[in-house]
Amino acid sequence: MAQKIIIDTDPGIDDAMAIAYAIAHPDIELLALTTIFGNVRTHEATRNALALLDHWGSEADVAEGEAKPIAMPANEPSYLVHGLNGFGGVEIPVSRRKKHSLKAVDYIIDASKRHPGEIVLCAVGPATNLARLLERDPEIVSRLKGVVVMGGAVHCKGNVTPMAEANFWNDPHAADMVLGASWPLVLAPLDCTMPVLFTPDFMHALARESPTLGRPLADMAEFYARFYRSHLGLGGCVPHDVMAISWLTVPGAFRLQKGALGVLTDGPAIGQTIFQPGGTRSRATVFEGRPDHLVMVDTDPGLFMADYMMVMTRYAR
Amino acid sequence: MAQKIIIDTDPGIDDAMAIAYAIAHPDIELLALTTIFGNVRTHEATRNALALLDHWGSEADVAEGEAKPIAMPANEPSYLVHGLNGFGGVEIPVSRRKKHSLKAVDYIIDASKRHPGEIVLCAVGPATNLARLLERDPEIVSRLKGVVVMGGAVHCKGNVTPMAEANFWNDPHAADMVLGASWPLVLAPLDCTMPVLFTPDFMHALARESPTLGRPLADMAEFYARFYRSHLGLGGCVPHDVMAISWLTVPGAFRLQKGALGVLTDGPAIGQTIFQPGGTRSRATVFEGRPDHLVMVDTDPGLFMADYMMVMTRYAR
Repeated sequence: MAQKIIIDTDPGIDDAMAIAYAIAHPDIELLALTTIFGNVRTHEATRNALALLDHWGSEADVAEGEAKPIAMPANEPSYLVHGLNGFGGVEIPVSRRKKHSLKAVDYIIDASKRHPGEIVLCAVGPATNLARLLERDPEIVSRLKGVVVMGGAVHCKGNVTPMAEANFWNDPHAADMVLGASWPLVLAPLDCTMPVLFTPDFMHALARESPTLGRPLADMAEFYARFYRSHLGLGGCVPHDVMAISWLTVPGAFRLQKGALGVLTDGPAIGQTIFQPGGTRSRATVFEGRPDHLVMVDTDPGLFMADYMMVMTRYAR
Repeated sequence: MAQKIIIDTDPGIDDAMAIAYAIAHPDIELLALTTIFGNVRTHEATRNALALLDHWGSEADVAEGEAKPIAMPANEPSYLVHGLNGFGGVEIPVSRRKKHSLKAVDYIIDASKRHPGEIVLCAVGPATNLARLLERDPEIVSRLKGVVVMGGAVHCKGNVTPMAEANFWNDPHAADMVLGASWPLVLAPLDCTMPVLFTPDFMHALARESPTLGRPLADMAEFYARFYRSHLGLGGCVPHDVMAISWLTVPGAFRLQKGALGVLTDGPAIGQTIFQPGGTRSRATVFEGRPDHLVMVDTDPGLFMADYMMVMTRYAR
């Protein structure tokens, strides 16, 4: 039976890559996109989510999420990386469909009651919706099958500051709450995303093999890759958000480590992920009472990319 | 609350290292040792288990297990590695205590009914008892909290043949059955044990800091290390079996990978571990229907050894 998922997302180019993969994969049933700010503003994320689903023929719901972080003003959206429309200037026709009447948090609670223990929540933007979810309904931790969070940098450097990764930096208080909760959480930080590069050749092949899904992604990736080339000297772009979905379908592509997690919520390193390997103690009392979670600390790029290409190719329409 | 465990063991020098750690660790409650052939014969394993517990003041039960593999004749015990008495010639006084009236399989079933969902079974010898357990009571998979198996070689070479690790080689049919069962299993293969070396300096410090537990281990290790020096050119010995306990107490010391597992049961590579990363497919139909398990594929030696030393030092008697 296909794995039911909800993707919490701020589309976003790598968000679109993750959504396309979820739509294409026969073992995944995409129930909904819940939206959040980050790469774009929340209302733009909702617009983009509806547009992608419509364009790709998915009837998944779109429920709009929080418009600002739980404890600080919102940072500027990442228009520099994802373009002013979130898709690197690529036009995806605006959908006539409407967003769901429930807001994101209520939608997730409702869905988890209809399908208790069956849904995995894949969060690929700032963790704001998830933090509000925990506040509103603490028992959610036992009604979700799992939570996969793309965010943070555990053994490696950040990408917004040397300390902080973008998703966690955009709402560190929320991320800290989410990582401290006792739900079955797997973290997909930069450690597992940065070893993977979607090169121009890879994207061209994707566009050729899977025109509907792959062509717009390849077009978006040209803009996205320009950022990676100019700012990081990389010859392609990093599909961060895809990792949170691929964990469900090709878990063997990742190396894991177990430990307790948190996020710094103020000071010069605000947004930095902190990690204490499971079973070790330190003077950092911050980890006391925090559960161990699995962290994806490395990726086999060949396995990951071959799987992405295979799933998209098989979809082929 | 301390984690209840049963160690299925063929003591054995590294078995003794694992048992000592379990006795010393305040977060572990050692319910019983169940015995198996491998390093020694089963009746010798029972004798050695009783002797160690008595010598170290533990009142854990000892239940005797199977005397031979489930589908082939027994290999010769590993007297070359562990000495004719299993302890490298070090004399541990014979205990007057008696083994439990229940055999190993019945003991485990009974314990799992008294403490449903609470016991982790740590198997550090051939998997024969575990295979018989699955045959006798298939529902055991839902009454154990977890199963940790030391055995196999996933991405690295074997230690009995280039293909096979000793525990799996001693009962490949049993190991294959155990790895194919749908219980929450974590595998500790040579991949995670070989990066760790207990050097003479380390063992001397252990003997000094923890005389009761550490002194006999250090004496045994001199014999054990002779094998590692002469056969592998290593300057110390590898505490294989300890990994299966440390996974429970210091999980952050290990790198993990998720995937489906099996063991070759005939041919020149008999006893070889086979592994298919989670979410990948191949023409190897053998993996069909097999659950993904976590595999400990690497170890941080410093973290592992510091934890071992710390736990033994704190025990200090």
